[in-house]
Amino acid sequence: MDSPSAPSETVFGLPPSIRPGVSLLGGTPPPERSDAARNRERILAAARVVIARDGIEYLTMDLLATEAGVGKGTIFRRFGSRTGVFRSLLDEAERDFQIRMMAGPPPLGPGADPIERLVAFGRARIEVLTTQGDLLRESEAPPEARYGVPARQVTEVHVMSLLRQAHVDGDLPVLAFNLISMLEAILILPPGAVRGITVPRLADGWEELVRRLVA
Amino acid sequence: MDSPSAPSETVFGLPPSIRPGVSLLGGTPPPERSDAARNRERILAAARVVIARDGIEYLTMDLLATEAGVGKGTIFRRFGSRTGVFRSLLDEAERDFQIRMMAGPPPLGPGADPIERLVAFGRARIEVLTTQGDLLRESEAPPEARYGVPARQVTEVHVMSLLRQAHVDGDLPVLAFNLISMLEAILILPPGAVRGITVPRLADGWEELVRRLVA
Repeated sequence: MDSPSAPSETVFGLPPSIRPGVSLLGGTPPPERSDAARNRERILAAARVVIARDGIEYLTMDLLATEAGVGKGTIFRRFGSRTGVFRSLLDEAERDFQIRMMAGPPPLGPGADPIERLVAFGRARIEVLTTQGDLLRESEAPPEARYGVPARQVTEVHVMSLLRQAHVDGDLPVLAFNLISMLEAILILPPGAVRGITVPRLADGWEELVRRLVA
Repeated sequence: MDSPSAPSETVFGLPPSIRPGVSLLGGTPPPERSDAARNRERILAAARVVIARDGIEYLTMDLLATEAGVGKGTIFRRFGSRTGVFRSLLDEAERDFQIRMMAGPPPLGPGADPIERLVAFGRARIEVLTTQGDLLRESEAPPEARYGVPARQVTEVHVMSLLRQAHVDGDLPVLAFNLISMLEAILILPPGAVRGITVPRLADGWEELVRRLVA
């Protein structure tokens, strides 16, 4: 996958410890040789196909090996376990989202009005968190690994920056914290499981709330 | 403890399955004889004293038996385990909150302007959720037991009803869902652990957000 190069860490004045591309679960991925990287991406691509086609609960190591056309030993060596595959998928989804948010096309990326960016941010984030929630539930991650992770800080700083650009006043760190908490509830409560609150309704609800907040 | 009798289930038109006083962790407490009830309340009162004085992590069964003036066997028979004590404390805190919210003095209880009730609701809820978060963390409850439990529905319906009374329009079930998710983040992220966001700041942030939403 060709992604645009990561933006410089000065985009939001983030300290290096929470720079873009930070792992959802903390830590830095080790460097890898290019054939290992190709293998890794091939396995992850196959995992994404199986999840989209069959559902995450059907992703076994046997099926993944068949779909990726590699031996099961290769997957275990690369990812350690089924949970290891999920963590890598989480990290890739997070990195991809952060790059779109900071350097992708508007309205999610730079160039649009800050309110339109905030609306687009929530809508896109709800989609990503829905997938991530499935991965986290399936890998039985503890709640602290779902909430309050380094990736959360990146999105909080982003939201705070947009609110400031839109000349919203008040305690912006708390407002940003609250807005991200609202979105991240999806990491724990699967949408649809909650009295028919679907992903599109949540996305529209986000837009409604943001426009009211800044009116 | 003398609590006012629970309000009738027609107060908010709640179906019986989510009527006031519902257990935070589901299920209905078994009936008990009055001496057993006294013993139970004595043990829970001692537990609240130890938690307030020493911190929850110091609450051992030995210390609890000494403080309550009962044998350790009595506590095990009544609560099963240390986690059982925490669950009972959670249930009592939840029931007590629901009674204050539905039948206590204004502005949390009936009689005040709906916006003032909503502000008071969030402020009081933040205090309760802070205590409950400690109990849930210490009893290692899974995230699903922290979020999306029956008690959540009672608060969502309450918030929805206040928003309707305040003539807020839009998708009120989603707005109420989002507002409760925001508050319930405290069940997972201990306030203060998050970049200096303290309980009073969260409470002020709630008020700011509510007044902006309904302006």
